[in-house]
Amino acid sequence: MLHHSTTDTIVAIATPPGQGAIGIIRLSGPEAIAITQAMFRGKDLATQPSHTLHFGRIVSGTTTVDEVVVSLYKGPRSYTGQDVTEISCHGSTFILQQVVALCIAHGARMAQPGEFTMRAFLAGRLDLTQAEAVADLIASNSSTAHRAAMHNLRGGFSTDLADMREQLIQFAALIELELDFSQEDVEFADRTRFYQLIQHITEATQALVQSFQLGNAIRNGVSVAIAGKPNAGKSTLLNALLNEERAIVSPIAGTTRDTIEELLNIRGILFRIIDTAGIRTHTTDVIEQKGIARSRDAMNRADIVIYLFDAPATATSPTEMADLHQQIADLQAAGSRYLLVGNKIDHAPPGTAATLLQATGQPVICLSAKEKENVTQLTEALYHLVTDGTVRTEGTIVTNARHHAALQEVLRSLDDIRQGMDNNLPGDLLALDIRRCLHYLGEITGTVTTEDKLDYIFSKFCIGK
Amino acid sequence: MLHHSTTDTIVAIATPPGQGAIGIIRLSGPEAIAITQAMFRGKDLATQPSHTLHFGRIVSGTTTVDEVVVSLYKGPRSYTGQDVTEISCHGSTFILQQVVALCIAHGARMAQPGEFTMRAFLAGRLDLTQAEAVADLIASNSSTAHRAAMHNLRGGFSTDLADMREQLIQFAALIELELDFSQEDVEFADRTRFYQLIQHITEATQALVQSFQLGNAIRNGVSVAIAGKPNAGKSTLLNALLNEERAIVSPIAGTTRDTIEELLNIRGILFRIIDTAGIRTHTTDVIEQKGIARSRDAMNRADIVIYLFDAPATATSPTEMADLHQQIADLQAAGSRYLLVGNKIDHAPPGTAATLLQATGQPVICLSAKEKENVTQLTEALYHLVTDGTVRTEGTIVTNARHHAALQEVLRSLDDIRQGMDNNLPGDLLALDIRRCLHYLGEITGTVTTEDKLDYIFSKFCIGK
Repeated sequence: MLHHSTTDTIVAIATPPGQGAIGIIRLSGPEAIAITQAMFRGKDLATQPSHTLHFGRIVSGTTTVDEVVVSLYKGPRSYTGQDVTEISCHGSTFILQQVVALCIAHGARMAQPGEFTMRAFLAGRLDLTQAEAVADLIASNSSTAHRAAMHNLRGGFSTDLADMREQLIQFAALIELELDFSQEDVEFADRTRFYQLIQHITEATQALVQSFQLGNAIRNGVSVAIAGKPNAGKSTLLNALLNEERAIVSPIAGTTRDTIEELLNIRGILFRIIDTAGIRTHTTDVIEQKGIARSRDAMNRADIVIYLFDAPATATSPTEMADLHQQIADLQAAGSRYLLVGNKIDHAPPGTAATLLQATGQPVICLSAKEKENVTQLTEALYHLVTDGTVRTEGTIVTNARHHAALQEVLRSLDDIRQGMDNNLPGDLLALDIRRCLHYLGEITGTVTTEDKLDYIFSKFCIGK
Repeated sequence: MLHHSTTDTIVAIATPPGQGAIGIIRLSGPEAIAITQAMFRGKDLATQPSHTLHFGRIVSGTTTVDEVVVSLYKGPRSYTGQDVTEISCHGSTFILQQVVALCIAHGARMAQPGEFTMRAFLAGRLDLTQAEAVADLIASNSSTAHRAAMHNLRGGFSTDLADMREQLIQFAALIELELDFSQEDVEFADRTRFYQLIQHITEATQALVQSFQLGNAIRNGVSVAIAGKPNAGKSTLLNALLNEERAIVSPIAGTTRDTIEELLNIRGILFRIIDTAGIRTHTTDVIEQKGIARSRDAMNRADIVIYLFDAPATATSPTEMADLHQQIADLQAAGSRYLLVGNKIDHAPPGTAATLLQATGQPVICLSAKEKENVTQLTEALYHLVTDGTVRTEGTIVTNARHHAALQEVLRSLDDIRQGMDNNLPGDLLALDIRRCLHYLGEITGTVTTEDKLDYIFSKFCIGK
């Protein structure tokens, strides 16, 4: 259970752990300045204007703990809306811990993860989508993830939702007005315009819901398992994709025992490529058996499976071809999204690609991992599978599972509203469905929310934010 | 080769790597404010007063990279004495790298390790001992290391040296004055007072040189190897010292193959305790043989060796006792500082401790690692061995090998001065020795220095400082 009280003063180390030139302790709350002053030897902070910097010493009794610079933010002109101080220390874990201990001794409380941002939310300085964007922004590790988080932080998503909500609220008000005059059988709310509005909001919501597949890929990366029989060249392909020698490559079947995961950034989307142990049906090596079990597991959990096979061998051997068909059937049965990739095309006779295409009845990417031939065709195919070829550089992309779930509820209630109108439902029942729709829209931005939900959202933050 | 130019503007990430609430980019140089302004959307920084904070956006073209707060320090009222800005971003590595790239695109240069502090030194805002203390302060991981670094940062060491230098310079001036009047055979410099002065400075320098053993322990920790025959209980002792189950303990002789190193903080001094493989004379296990070789190596490199043996077995078996005598002889021959520790005292008959003391003619600490009996006697003995029982809480402790080396040169030249006076050396030769002494004193604080020396000193800093 998180603290939702904002009347006490919280403290946390705000910089990443480890040694660095600078480490920062952040305080927020009514006593932030007084607590800082109690251990600060320099100017009288209380009498200084907001947004100023003050050099001095942090002392514990007669001992100087550090020479610091204090940043002074007086509420409401601060991140949290409260008085905030940031103490910029030398970046030694030892010193930072000493200073935090001093703050606590002088009356501060250790902040919980995300508590500063929660205070910003509770003070109305950010809505929930913006607060969540703060955590996403900190975690962003690709340009698209960064762009999506920044769009949300700057209120892009909130604006979309606020527009919808406002239009709905107007109609709800008109319909509820009808209820007061229910004896008279009047219609203040123009049903045709209302149909149009519901249609418009439904389309906008659908677009947001659909953006989540891409949004999820942007936020969490896309997992891609490279599967295939031993010696199909899986580790070599991983190396070719990464353009460096990451996996240990050897011609001995069964070299890769553990799964290897590497990050590949294709035009701003992060792919997590998982090299798996070769899938052999029979092996007596216990450790290798464990590796194969892990491979199957990785394939099942992956967003995309690259099924790699020896192109010349498969094109010429009926047994190998039958095997490929079996694998394709397995992948389809498992509901996997997959790409068929024929390797060793540099050793294949002309016409192999055509043979494979005909035999499988599906697109096959033919390449040589060893010679790094045609590898970009594979990376392009991966990018297309996730983005349908384009990443929107503007507008909202839903990246958050909580938002996605709420938007689906919005769609469901919009559907109920439409059906209610079709069936000439009385105004009071219609109003109920509209309220439900408004509720879910409001839940996304935090206009309506519960303490439990706040706990869940902010507990995923890093400390000090 | 480092840049010693201070006319360009340098940039670096000043916070530790990794995700955090806040990440800071620091710029210093004549263009620091202009470069920050070029990518900043907010107030006009150039017209703002020093020591103020400004909220705004960092932009790259039309894209918002982050919402930030800029700290403005106008030279000379800054760390480096130049114009300095600190851009406080969301703590994402991706964002920080983007902002650094923007700074470079706008004309900044990546700072080298310690370059901000070097500029502070070159601007005369810190002397060398203070600059070096900055790096020590950041690396400090115990209260004594922190205290020593803070003492130096606040100029404690510099003051000691400045006093000595000033007194010597006065005498050197008087002696050089005599040279101008050499025809007249006058003595401006009172030789008796000069003797006293040299004696005084020598004593002060000796105290500083002697403090280095403790200083080195404070700064780098003290390495302690736990040695002994297989099954003496070395891993159990390590666990007892650490009060947790760190090493894998088993009753099978030869369980510990690799050396294990753990940190133990005894009253503010860090000990690095190294558990070694048991030393058996004969073993056929190749991996175990390698482990034993590593143990011997660890023993030879350790500051202190704890030689652990089975107390009841040794007290009752002439063979074991002969073996212990052999080990003691080996330790003495190797010039090791060591502690003899008899283990398993919980299984020993009364009088065992007395028997061991008599047989070895040396103090033996008797304890039970398994029952955690008497273990504090060992930690106290370790502490005493390093500190002679007390750590000075005031005054200078030399923690830096460079300072130690220079101080030894100071002692040597003081000795030459004294001998020169004893032998009634002419004033011009005496003056030469005094100048040499002054040179080494000045080298410590950087009053006299070479570019190479600066390179060496600052290259050990972390980046961004």
